[in-house]
Amino acid sequence: MVSKRMEQVRAEVQGRLDLAISLMPEGRLRDAMAYAVLGGKRVRAFLVMESARLHEVPAEAALPVAAAVEALHAYSLVHDDLPAMDDDELRRGLPTCHVQWDEATAILAGDALQTLAFELLTDPAIGGAETRVALVAALARAAGARGMVWGQEQDIAAETAVAPLTLDQITALQRAKTGALIGFAAEAGPLMAGSDPAPLRHYAQALGLAFQIADDILDVTGTEAETGKRVGKDAAANKATFVSLLGLDGARERAAALVAQAENALAPYGDSAESLRELARFVIQRDK
Amino acid sequence: MVSKRMEQVRAEVQGRLDLAISLMPEGRLRDAMAYAVLGGKRVRAFLVMESARLHEVPAEAALPVAAAVEALHAYSLVHDDLPAMDDDELRRGLPTCHVQWDEATAILAGDALQTLAFELLTDPAIGGAETRVALVAALARAAGARGMVWGQEQDIAAETAVAPLTLDQITALQRAKTGALIGFAAEAGPLMAGSDPAPLRHYAQALGLAFQIADDILDVTGTEAETGKRVGKDAAANKATFVSLLGLDGARERAAALVAQAENALAPYGDSAESLRELARFVIQRDK
Repeated sequence: MVSKRMEQVRAEVQGRLDLAISLMPEGRLRDAMAYAVLGGKRVRAFLVMESARLHEVPAEAALPVAAAVEALHAYSLVHDDLPAMDDDELRRGLPTCHVQWDEATAILAGDALQTLAFELLTDPAIGGAETRVALVAALARAAGARGMVWGQEQDIAAETAVAPLTLDQITALQRAKTGALIGFAAEAGPLMAGSDPAPLRHYAQALGLAFQIADDILDVTGTEAETGKRVGKDAAANKATFVSLLGLDGARERAAALVAQAENALAPYGDSAESLRELARFVIQRDK
Repeated sequence: MVSKRMEQVRAEVQGRLDLAISLMPEGRLRDAMAYAVLGGKRVRAFLVMESARLHEVPAEAALPVAAAVEALHAYSLVHDDLPAMDDDELRRGLPTCHVQWDEATAILAGDALQTLAFELLTDPAIGGAETRVALVAALARAAGARGMVWGQEQDIAAETAVAPLTLDQITALQRAKTGALIGFAAEAGPLMAGSDPAPLRHYAQALGLAFQIADDILDVTGTEAETGKRVGKDAAANKATFVSLLGLDGARERAAALVAQAENALAPYGDSAESLRELARFVIQRDK
């Protein structure tokens, strides 16, 4: 069952993050960092652990990488939620970091979580120095001004743009904003093993888009209680989304097609990739 | 002459930063990143290049490290200047990043500059993978929640603290806030060469504190035109500084003593470290 395995990964990655943060000096900054890494579905960590398993990379080697990608993701959420950005007050069912603490602490906690992500990739448990440097370079490409941060900037620009984005533009934006980090996570296993990343790259591209379409659908159909975050944001902001462009049924169809595509990309792995197929199905069935 | 050598380093590191940023997608985010890395004294880059030269590390190998430390430093300034942090409108004689662009862009440009710093450390020109991983780990320690960001958090907390900080507390705060990154820069040469970092570590500890005391003095004696940033901030905020605790003359004496200490730490290098001695003297004589 994918949910049982996800639960196990969730506990392991939380333990690794808590350990890393416990080594920081006591105080408000550390508390805010610990707060920011609580909860979440840990989809990215699961991708790291499963892609590692498929390439016979030991779990002990993959765990710091899984923790790194979740630290990076947590930093991006803390900064995205800031008043100057998406201005959100609820995340994972809890007050956002700047509401729970304050804006300065949230900015700094996010900054320090990004630093921690790169530090975690230097953990000798991961393997040789060549592997660790390759992971640092890959995470930097996925996270920085060619990846996640570029996507976030496009997303914010879209809110004040004169014309709503087209489907192609939204697809490009989401490929960067959420797809790049999901791609890093899915390719971590082959990268660590020195194997061909193509099947998992194709899987991650389809999964990342399906994930985002599901998010857009939840923003329309979900409740705050279910999703743990504010809903109806996109419509309120008059923002083009996969739902506004394709309609609710069209978006659901597109997501289902992408999930099928993601599952097909896993063919080279046969039955051993069943948990990743289940993850793809979970991504569009989830209620948060 | 140290100023001629500093000018050379400044041009080289600017070239390396411009090259790295030119590889990012065009647009507002990239423009803000390029804006944020303009100007500055490049003290940290100079420390990297000189500590590398003293340890016979080629300049081509040291240059990406120098660019990395300046990218990291630039990110910290962009975030420090934000309204929720120090709320500064002038930096290096120009409008701060969030004034020139907007808050969201400044947050994202800072985020992407931190990512870029770590990416620069993966440049194969630096040397073997072991060296690059060691640099990533060292920069993460210096920059994160045990180093620079911790110091910045303490600095912000001090503004609302009931009792002003003591000399010991300010020293600890500044060791983290500015000292950790200066230490990374000064130790980069021995780290890359696999040599004993102790002399340059002692040099950097004294230099970092002297640098901060000089900053506190400039905040009292300097003008906005000279320093390129707002002055009189500390007194207006009723903030304890080296000047408020030691007096202007006492602070000058302490800075001079630290410069002598920094110069003495370089004894093992003999005459070849003359430029670092000149840098230490420059740090307390500068007017910006």
